[in-house]
Amino acid sequence: MQNKKLKIGIVGGTGYTGVELLRLLATHPYAEITAVTSRGESGMPVADMFPSLRGYIKAVFSDPATVDLSLCDIVFFATPNGIAMQQTRDLLAIGVRVIDLAADFRIQDISTWEKWYGMSHACPDLVGEAVYGLPELNRDKIRTAQLVANPGCYPTAVQLGFMPLLEAGVVDVKHLIADAKSGLSGAGRKAEVHSLFAEAGDNFKAYGVSGHRHLPEISQGLTSMAKSQVGFTFVPHLTPLIRGIHATLYATLTKDVDLQDLFETRYSNERFVDVLPKGLHPETRSVRGSNQCRIAVHCPQGGDKVVVLSVIDNLVKGAAGQAVQNMNIMFGFAENTGLEVVPLLP
Amino acid sequence: MQNKKLKIGIVGGTGYTGVELLRLLATHPYAEITAVTSRGESGMPVADMFPSLRGYIKAVFSDPATVDLSLCDIVFFATPNGIAMQQTRDLLAIGVRVIDLAADFRIQDISTWEKWYGMSHACPDLVGEAVYGLPELNRDKIRTAQLVANPGCYPTAVQLGFMPLLEAGVVDVKHLIADAKSGLSGAGRKAEVHSLFAEAGDNFKAYGVSGHRHLPEISQGLTSMAKSQVGFTFVPHLTPLIRGIHATLYATLTKDVDLQDLFETRYSNERFVDVLPKGLHPETRSVRGSNQCRIAVHCPQGGDKVVVLSVIDNLVKGAAGQAVQNMNIMFGFAENTGLEVVPLLP
Amino acid sequence: MQNKKLKIGIVGGTGYTGVELLRLLATHPYAEITAVTSRGESGMPVADMFPSLRGYIKAVFSDPATVDLSLCDIVFFATPNGIAMQQTRDLLAIGVRVIDLAADFRIQDISTWEKWYGMSHACPDLVGEAVYGLPELNRDKIRTAQLVANPGCYPTAVQLGFMPLLEAGVVDVKHLIADAKSGLSGAGRKAEVHSLFAEAGDNFKAYGVSGHRHLPEISQGLTSMAKSQVGFTFVPHLTPLIRGIHATLYATLTKDVDLQDLFETRYSNERFVDVLPKGLHPETRSVRGSNQCRIAVHCPQGGDKVVVLSVIDNLVKGAAGQAVQNMNIMFGFAENTGLEVVPLLP
Amino acid sequence: MQNKKLKIGIVGGTGYTGVELLRLLATHPYAEITAVTSRGESGMPVADMFPSLRGYIKAVFSDPATVDLSLCDIVFFATPNGIAMQQTRDLLAIGVRVIDLAADFRIQDISTWEKWYGMSHACPDLVGEAVYGLPELNRDKIRTAQLVANPGCYPTAVQLGFMPLLEAGVVDVKHLIADAKSGLSGAGRKAEVHSLFAEAGDNFKAYGVSGHRHLPEISQGLTSMAKSQVGFTFVPHLTPLIRGIHATLYATLTKDVDLQDLFETRYSNERFVDVLPKGLHPETRSVRGSNQCRIAVHCPQGGDKVVVLSVIDNLVKGAAGQAVQNMNIMFGFAENTGLEVVPLLP
Repeated sequence: MQNKKLKIGIVGGTGYTGVELLRLLATHPYAEITAVTSRGESGMPVADMFPSLRGYIKAVFSDPATVDLSLCDIVFFATPNGIAMQQTRDLLAIGVRVIDLAADFRIQDISTWEKWYGMSHACPDLVGEAVYGLPELNRDKIRTAQLVANPGCYPTAVQLGFMPLLEAGVVDVKHLIADAKSGLSGAGRKAEVHSLFAEAGDNFKAYGVSGHRHLPEISQGLTSMAKSQVGFTFVPHLTPLIRGIHATLYATLTKDVDLQDLFETRYSNERFVDVLPKGLHPETRSVRGSNQCRIAVHCPQGGDKVVVLSVIDNLVKGAAGQAVQNMNIMFGFAENTGLEVVPLLP
Repeated sequence: MQNKKLKIGIVGGTGYTGVELLRLLATHPYAEITAVTSRGESGMPVADMFPSLRGYIKAVFSDPATVDLSLCDIVFFATPNGIAMQQTRDLLAIGVRVIDLAADFRIQDISTWEKWYGMSHACPDLVGEAVYGLPELNRDKIRTAQLVANPGCYPTAVQLGFMPLLEAGVVDVKHLIADAKSGLSGAGRKAEVHSLFAEAGDNFKAYGVSGHRHLPEISQGLTSMAKSQVGFTFVPHLTPLIRGIHATLYATLTKDVDLQDLFETRYSNERFVDVLPKGLHPETRSVRGSNQCRIAVHCPQGGDKVVVLSVIDNLVKGAAGQAVQNMNIMFGFAENTGLEVVPLLP
Repeated sequence: MQNKKLKIGIVGGTGYTGVELLRLLATHPYAEITAVTSRGESGMPVADMFPSLRGYIKAVFSDPATVDLSLCDIVFFATPNGIAMQQTRDLLAIGVRVIDLAADFRIQDISTWEKWYGMSHACPDLVGEAVYGLPELNRDKIRTAQLVANPGCYPTAVQLGFMPLLEAGVVDVKHLIADAKSGLSGAGRKAEVHSLFAEAGDNFKAYGVSGHRHLPEISQGLTSMAKSQVGFTFVPHLTPLIRGIHATLYATLTKDVDLQDLFETRYSNERFVDVLPKGLHPETRSVRGSNQCRIAVHCPQGGDKVVVLSVIDNLVKGAAGQAVQNMNIMFGFAENTGLEVVPLLP
Repeated sequence: MQNKKLKIGIVGGTGYTGVELLRLLATHPYAEITAVTSRGESGMPVADMFPSLRGYIKAVFSDPATVDLSLCDIVFFATPNGIAMQQTRDLLAIGVRVIDLAADFRIQDISTWEKWYGMSHACPDLVGEAVYGLPELNRDKIRTAQLVANPGCYPTAVQLGFMPLLEAGVVDVKHLIADAKSGLSGAGRKAEVHSLFAEAGDNFKAYGVSGHRHLPEISQGLTSMAKSQVGFTFVPHLTPLIRGIHATLYATLTKDVDLQDLFETRYSNERFVDVLPKGLHPETRSVRGSNQCRIAVHCPQGGDKVVVLSVIDNLVKGAAGQAVQNMNIMFGFAENTGLEVVPLLP
């Protein structure tokens, strides 16, 4: 079964999640890149834009208006929000499975989505069919999903960090806090002044304290894990990294529990979640370029506060890597196929 | 009165707080560098080690064993912890005023200090005489102090951020959280592997979650402001900045209050605390090289959580700049003398 | 005479050279900011865009179409190339002196200028009147100049490095090489993908090897110093710095000469050129934020090659600082007025 | 033959070349890590020091004094200079092949080596047997070598850039210049003040202009290619990158030649040398984490100067990757085995 290569389409191949998909799929044994689209760069070899792919990717950017994606087994949308929802219905109808790396299918409550994303949803009925692609939570549903909503980067790091606590019911769910820090690639490959090297370098700042689009996505997930409405405060920050998210999570314990054992047990069978030995602190560089999430759990001075440290590479476990992990699950490949990339340190 | 220049001694001039004192004092109109000591570099011109000071500082490093500090009006200790307490009694006895930039005199409870700093205190009786040099809190006492304990970098950013809330009694003091991020100069000019560019660059991590030496210093200050024992969680992080601290503070409101007005009123007469207009987020670079602390206060989604963002340059308001501010107060100069350095942006 | 403050206009205040002019002029004792223009940000307080200037600059951006610059004693153009030449004639006509930080008046040969800058020159006759504002070369002419062409950043570092060699006639002028490296602020505050943190961070590259606009500017200067046509190869590179230019210059010696003495003698009276002791290597950070150029001269293995290392802060000695230095000369102030800013290290 | 895994020993596994060998060998299909030694860390699991290797490397650091390397098929020395020469004779005697990543066997002239490295050579007779491990130059000799001297990082980038020009005899060999820039990992994982983040970050400088140890290594190689003594000037610089070398090479053309064709032809069969299309500039990040060397050749303004731009990852093609490439050649594996790692961009 696994001898036949999957025909893969990537819609929106000029952003960071697009090039990262190509990096990972370039050495995936069952992947064949059939089409990579770009509105602006149609006709240009992909490797001319991303010289790191020279020798690995022969594809040429296609015009999304004329490309035929019906030959694909699966299509990844690495596009801005609001694009996938325009095209997904037609693709599903002809049997092409879809993974959206943007936010179009992540939030089940349509009015919430429309409020935070500032547009009308083009296919609300498909949202209910979409599976939220966090394998550690939804592996079984992903297997048979036709449409996967790939989680956001912050939501991946935060939810994997809180999950054992909420599922076990050992913290006060009304006062959850996530202080999250992201590298600049999380802002995308868009020409914006505040993302310039001379602006974001040697600089640290919070942003979106009044409300960030990942807040409702995370709240939805945490509420589902807790089986009751959570109170959740989310403060994202920009830090001068290229890649990496570090989420520092705070909660108040309501039960006496062996936190180290709780986390190790929860993730004992998860290839891509690594619970560090007690007392350690994960570094973002320890997952650079890899699909790993590394987590440490602390209880400072033995008090009632639990502090969880969760790190991922925002472009891999926080985007393209998790998408490939989902693809592997959907098509019955070993979950780590093409994802055994050793992190780059230093 | 102000025509006569102060004779200034700096003990330990080869670290970052030492060179930063020299940078600021080089253009201070009432400062005359009398002695700069270094055990290892005695005899070397200071500007040979720090070429940025060429043309500004003519001093040569003196041997601390032989230097005569009795001619000084004031001595700054820019030394590791445990040095100032060996020499302060003698200096005070001959009328030399002292500002310690290390931690020897910061914590009033001697046993707490000895536990966190792992040594016996050499002069516990002087700790009670020392004034904690946070001008915004202790200006009047600093004026007449013979011995000033200059606050730590994290403690400065965190205490200035919490102060209006605690003094006004509007938050639950049992659940205060400070998620703080520091640049690498905070680790000092010590040759250590984890501070190498190739280790700390493009990397983000928490450290000391189980307990950091600034925890008891901050707790002491917050408890004093709150007039009752606080519950305080402190998680420091290293971020790839050269300079800068960003403290993100979380508390739960217990009273209805106009937060913006509370902060603006509290700091309306403070030259070095700048409360940003509502809704903004301070950046560390906006204070780079300057003695400014910039603060913003948020109440996300109008809930019961208050989020305070507080940034300083750890080497200036968090160390050498605050020390000069204290010196200005002690000697009756205008508080901003020599400190009107416009931040370097970009 | 120096009691009266100069009324200063800045055309184009939203770029890096604009904000840098404001940083330096904010504490200049004889400067009064009369107008700062911006096409896009008219009506916004300058300090809202650049929070580092809060408390120092009260000016509000003016609309360049309606602002009256006739009240100014001097106008700085911190604009893209091609703007100053549209407005300079009118300003000069009413007695306003002009310093252009862009390239409009730097190149005496109009056809060369038009070829490299891709536009027709609006006032070729004024080019001949303009003084090239490199004080170490043209101090006397600058004193009485009505119009100063402020040098480019690369040209400043490269010309100051080659000048003693060419004036003394000790190298083969047919084979001069400048391998120059610039930080990202040199690319300006423009939203462009290749200047993003995630593109330019942890990355190093050459650019413009086939021809960079600073090539004819430097060639013109070197030829003038050598009094014969030079052969000059110029390769600029981008390095992940915010500020700083490092020029590494190569030439072949044709005469036996004491290089150290040659350089020290040439610059003995120059406040802003610092010749390092023999054997040292200047670092860009040793001039960060300051108007200093630091130079070292080497003769590796005692062979016939001379290697000159020249560093500046591209925004200060390479732009705004040199402009203020020129202003000081033009108005009879001490040349270092407002420019005694100690470099920020670390 | 290739079914049997090689037993591999790594002497000195705590430096950057050591961890990089482990990263690459972790997924090499024919590699089995038999021993990793460290004087200081004996008994510690390797992955405790380098968490990026968690899940990939189970080895524990061995004491070099007691480890038995006789079981190994090959031993890599990732040690400081002067160690490999102490142990190589014994290993070769029992049939263990050796690759030294340090400099002990790189320079054929013993007195030159002893002068630059400041020690007596322990086994001068073996130097003549060693093969200089630049596969693009010495592939056939490497195949049967028992002892390979792995080239330095600068020498790899510089020699690959000059090779086509020198072999073809089209440049003046008396005036070759290499202006080279390296990231900080090239300085090794040693605790030294000048390599701290707060020292080397946002900073650029030249070093060793009077003479760098890679100078005689490169001169030896260039002279061999040119078949006559070259005149060579080498200026290395430190740039705030973690990984990456960019060499900018200058020479004067003596013949009319199609440079692009010359380079493309020379490297047409080389898997790890990529000649870019005419007019492009290689970026260090385009080879980050990979064994690729990317080269561009320019002739600015059609003059007589040729400028070659050559980039490598100093830890891969400049060290560990080239060592694995050499191992593959020595043992008859496909040369790219284990080395098809797509560069990490961004």
